[in-house]
Amino acid sequence: MKVGARNQIVGTVKAVKQGDVMSQVTLEVPASEMASVMTTDSLAELGLAPGDRVRVVVKAIHVLLLKE
Amino acid sequence: MKVGARNQIVGTVKAVKQGDVMSQVTLEVPASEMASVMTTDSLAELGLAPGDRVRVVVKAIHVLLLKE
Amino acid sequence: MKVGARNQIVGTVKAVKQGDVMSQVTLEVPASEMASVMTTDSLAELGLAPGDRVRVVVKAIHVLLLKE
Amino acid sequence: MKVGARNQIVGTVKAVKQGDVMSQVTLEVPASEMASVMTTDSLAELGLAPGDRVRVVVKAIHVLLLKE
Amino acid sequence: MKVGARNQIVGTVKAVKQGDVMSQVTLEVPASEMASVMTTDSLAELGLAPGDRVRVVVKAIHVLLLKE
Amino acid sequence: MKVGARNQIVGTVKAVKQGDVMSQVTLEVPASEMASVMTTDSLAELGLAPGDRVRVVVKAIHVLLLKE
Repeated sequence: MKVGARNQIVGTVKAVKQGDVMSQVTLEVPASEMASVMTTDSLAELGLAPGDRVRVVVKAIHVLLLKE
Repeated sequence: MKVGARNQIVGTVKAVKQGDVMSQVTLEVPASEMASVMTTDSLAELGLAPGDRVRVVVKAIHVLLLKE
Repeated sequence: MKVGARNQIVGTVKAVKQGDVMSQVTLEVPASEMASVMTTDSLAELGLAPGDRVRVVVKAIHVLLLKE
Repeated sequence: MKVGARNQIVGTVKAVKQGDVMSQVTLEVPASEMASVMTTDSLAELGLAPGDRVRVVVKAIHVLLLKE
Repeated sequence: MKVGARNQIVGTVKAVKQGDVMSQVTLEVPASEMASVMTTDSLAELGLAPGDRVRVVVKAIHVLLLKE
Repeated sequence: MKVGARNQIVGTVKAVKQGDVMSQVTLEVPASEMASVMTTDSLAELGLAPGDRVRVVVKAIHVLLLKE
């Protein structure tokens, strides 16, 4: 499946923090770590657990640059 | 300066594609490549050119996960 | 493939408007019409043309409600 | 009132799930179902309850396309 | 009309920069200046011109904080 | 540090509402009030408390306009 976003990387679920409405997933990606927040409903639907492989997707318009 | 976002990585500008209203910056980050889209006004203000070091920031709520 | 987003619907590409950096895709979805904006690079990668079937995805945090 | 977004549809509130900071609203829209996440403060301000009619708004840049 | 977003302010259109797919609107708001980017289609639909009064809306999840 | 976003203003933290996964920060900005939602992890990292000065950043693509 092709995804219409510039930023895509394969990662592994490191930890899941389940909240009332929103949940947070921490991910290991090559050379770094990332985090994703989704609804707790989406978390249940994906059935994510530590060790799972996921595709991590971010549209380019959501990427902010800072320069010293 | 501390930034209130879960995803932060240092990258290097690889290419700049300037458009009429929006512009696209391609970045080299450790073990991967990323892209950011901002207004052409912001691009001018940052004065980005290939080789520049930037901090790349993404809020966790903008990160989407896909699972096979 | 499972997608970690609350809003998903299958649509058909109706029209593509290619811009310098960003492009716009108009979609027919059941009982309505939608639009997506992505980078022109992503458009090329997806290779979208009228008639193509796509999955349309929106995270719930991007949905705004207005009440009269 | 005119809204500067490509995606607009009228929906009916189906369910409300109130969280500590964020809340989730499930919506019935023609031929489908949608979900919106907002702050619990915004939910209170809108005073949303099942059966309420709302206008559902999504900017086109928040719409992601996937193609098989 | 009530809008389900924490950040709302009334502003006046100062300038419009029309692009091929996306357009930029500069706004005067009390004590500051803001900018909005939307599709050129949405700009046409709103029919915005300098001097127009608009309501400026931002969901709280899109607001990033930086601390020295 | 330069930030690649059109909307930037200096504000003062007025209140912090800490949730399980997401937290909300209310801000006083010149002539108005704003709110930001971030992960509770980011809140802890920023160490925000009432009275703190912060830079408030919003990308122009996240600004929606409504016209009467």
